[in-house]
Amino acid sequence: MWQKALHRMLAGFIRHGRLSITYPDGTTHQYAGDAPGGGEEIGAPNEVAVTLHDPALPRRLMMSPEIALGEGYMDGTLTIEGDDLEGLLRVCIGNLGAQGGVLQSHRPLVFLRYLFRRARQFNPANRSRANVAHHYDLSGALYDLFLDTDRQYSCAYFRRPDMTLEEAQEAKKAHIAGKLLLEPGMRVLDIGCGWGGMGLTLAKQYGAQVTGVTLSEEQHKIATQRARDAGLEGRAEFKLMDYRDVTGEFDRIVSVGMFEHVGTPHYLEYFDKIRTLLAPDGVALVHTIGRARPPGTTSPWIVKYIFPGGYVPALSEMSRAVEDAALIATDVEIWRLHYAETLRHWHARFMDNLDKVRALYDERFCRMWRFYLLASELSFRLNRQVVFQMQLARAQEAVPLTREYLYRGN
Amino acid sequence: MWQKALHRMLAGFIRHGRLSITYPDGTTHQYAGDAPGGGEEIGAPNEVAVTLHDPALPRRLMMSPEIALGEGYMDGTLTIEGDDLEGLLRVCIGNLGAQGGVLQSHRPLVFLRYLFRRARQFNPANRSRANVAHHYDLSGALYDLFLDTDRQYSCAYFRRPDMTLEEAQEAKKAHIAGKLLLEPGMRVLDIGCGWGGMGLTLAKQYGAQVTGVTLSEEQHKIATQRARDAGLEGRAEFKLMDYRDVTGEFDRIVSVGMFEHVGTPHYLEYFDKIRTLLAPDGVALVHTIGRARPPGTTSPWIVKYIFPGGYVPALSEMSRAVEDAALIATDVEIWRLHYAETLRHWHARFMDNLDKVRALYDERFCRMWRFYLLASELSFRLNRQVVFQMQLARAQEAVPLTREYLYRGN
Repeated sequence: MWQKALHRMLAGFIRHGRLSITYPDGTTHQYAGDAPGGGEEIGAPNEVAVTLHDPALPRRLMMSPEIALGEGYMDGTLTIEGDDLEGLLRVCIGNLGAQGGVLQSHRPLVFLRYLFRRARQFNPANRSRANVAHHYDLSGALYDLFLDTDRQYSCAYFRRPDMTLEEAQEAKKAHIAGKLLLEPGMRVLDIGCGWGGMGLTLAKQYGAQVTGVTLSEEQHKIATQRARDAGLEGRAEFKLMDYRDVTGEFDRIVSVGMFEHVGTPHYLEYFDKIRTLLAPDGVALVHTIGRARPPGTTSPWIVKYIFPGGYVPALSEMSRAVEDAALIATDVEIWRLHYAETLRHWHARFMDNLDKVRALYDERFCRMWRFYLLASELSFRLNRQVVFQMQLARAQEAVPLTREYLYRGN
Repeated sequence: MWQKALHRMLAGFIRHGRLSITYPDGTTHQYAGDAPGGGEEIGAPNEVAVTLHDPALPRRLMMSPEIALGEGYMDGTLTIEGDDLEGLLRVCIGNLGAQGGVLQSHRPLVFLRYLFRRARQFNPANRSRANVAHHYDLSGALYDLFLDTDRQYSCAYFRRPDMTLEEAQEAKKAHIAGKLLLEPGMRVLDIGCGWGGMGLTLAKQYGAQVTGVTLSEEQHKIATQRARDAGLEGRAEFKLMDYRDVTGEFDRIVSVGMFEHVGTPHYLEYFDKIRTLLAPDGVALVHTIGRARPPGTTSPWIVKYIFPGGYVPALSEMSRAVEDAALIATDVEIWRLHYAETLRHWHARFMDNLDKVRALYDERFCRMWRFYLLASELSFRLNRQVVFQMQLARAQEAVPLTREYLYRGN
């Protein structure tokens, strides 16, 4: 019964590309879309052949497609000819993107998910700490095996298409520093400072007086050590604390790749806190993954395995919280495809270092991480994920009247 | 009784600047705020002295402050020492801006207004035509007396602060043309084409094949004549029609200063129409006044006398409609203070030409127009009005991956 239902669903779902499935009972079916590719919402999906080894998989794929697909791949109960995970994800995410982002046959389920998102994204301080530990307290060695040398764990800025990952991460930091209109001695708060790369750069290259906060013990330890090694102890201080507990006044606030963890119930609280901490003529820059779609839900596989409590905001959600917090959005840049390129680099480095990853983690973890990197890349490429850089101020005069200051001398 | 209530309200409302009122019974009261100016949300309000000549004014100012103030000034039942209308509006709008945009004591009233905004902004084609005629079918001669020579009736772009109004309007058109990524021969639709200035420029300077639509008979007549005079008949065509009736496909769509007239109940319809008319690799640019505040209502005086059916959107409202219409916002520029400068120029030209305006319209109209120009300028200066330029596409590849193309060679 479940196999038949899955068969019917796939026959309707696959409109682009070709998917062949060998079911647990040994029968093989072909699904092919003849809809014109068009190139508008999706790329050119591959042909891909999948085998389902576990009789429970058809039911699980119907009930919870994203989790079942990811777990099937992790557990090896779903195998792909030539281990072509990218091809499979390209067909799945490409068809999802063409259909409006969620499986049509699962709309009621998605609506239920939406109803519960408030509870799932309720992130008080203790839960935030646990969420952060889940991901960011993984062995630092893992991140060295796929990130750039500065450990920038957020979207790079390919100002020129031929940039290396290292160059594009430098360009990202320089672009953000430009938006912050830094002057030497300015007090800068970095909310979600990671391993310290951004804060150390602002202190060293721009003379800023940086305070960075993170909830990850591993990140805090490394950032503090890096500040010491660079002789920046007095100019870049990293604290293990929730941003909601920060006090004082800052000329500039920067927050890169942290808003994704805030959760919709806390959006107003987040921007209110920024307003409270910002000097009257201050400037803030929030950099986050965004959805170029209406508000929705997060992939349940991502929530379960990668980012518990996480959510990718729509511009309408983010800007409503900014308005309610009485901040002025002074510029909104929307990066498209930069994160797809970043993730492509990460995936390539990860695969190059797979033997070293295997020395740290088991095979299931390796497959999980690969699934995460590839599915994320293809979401940016085919399913309208973008990056928002929102520049904020309390006073409209805090920022120049044109954006030319960002592009001078390039 | 009403005089006493107004007195109490003003004593609480005026936190910045000094206002003296001589009431109809001859008594004079001073209202002065000692709150620190701070310069964050407001400028430096003046001292201003007002006399109320009509015993009905205190009640009317309590019931409907914005309309009563405007009408009192138009009718001469409210006079200002030295006719310092700017000083009075600076105190009123400055204190409004500092308080969050609406009179605290009138919150329930504002909420009622909010409830009814759907009805007031319900603009089917016939009502839109009437709304447009109300304003844009005024004598063309009037607009010549305060606009630039190209009759750009929207915010100019003061790329350099010392630009003349003419230069800044040219800069606006060039900046928008840059965002449209025009190539010769492209089919461009101009929704709300005004007197044709933008369309004629895109046809002449960029080789575009322009279709402009307006609901104003006066604008349509003049735009068509200008195309003929410029020898651009085959390349710029202007049509007297509702944009909802446009058919065909366009490579580029531009809409400047028209979205303010759409009305919130029609936002999705507007962006849906843009999506339908746009080629798959097309680019659109919507330029509109915006509020750097949560969704709210329009000044009832403005709705009654200047723009019936009009509304100034919050970014959250606009972007939600864009998301629902499955368009991708590829850039959002937020102009602050450019419109204040533009309106300052318009007001100066209007006052220089006041004798000529008086030959066209009566004194009450002249005072109404002056009130409109000054109140608008101060709303941009002191009450968080801004301009949104939202660039839109159907495919994320339609626009370059960085914004450097907009600033090259400046």
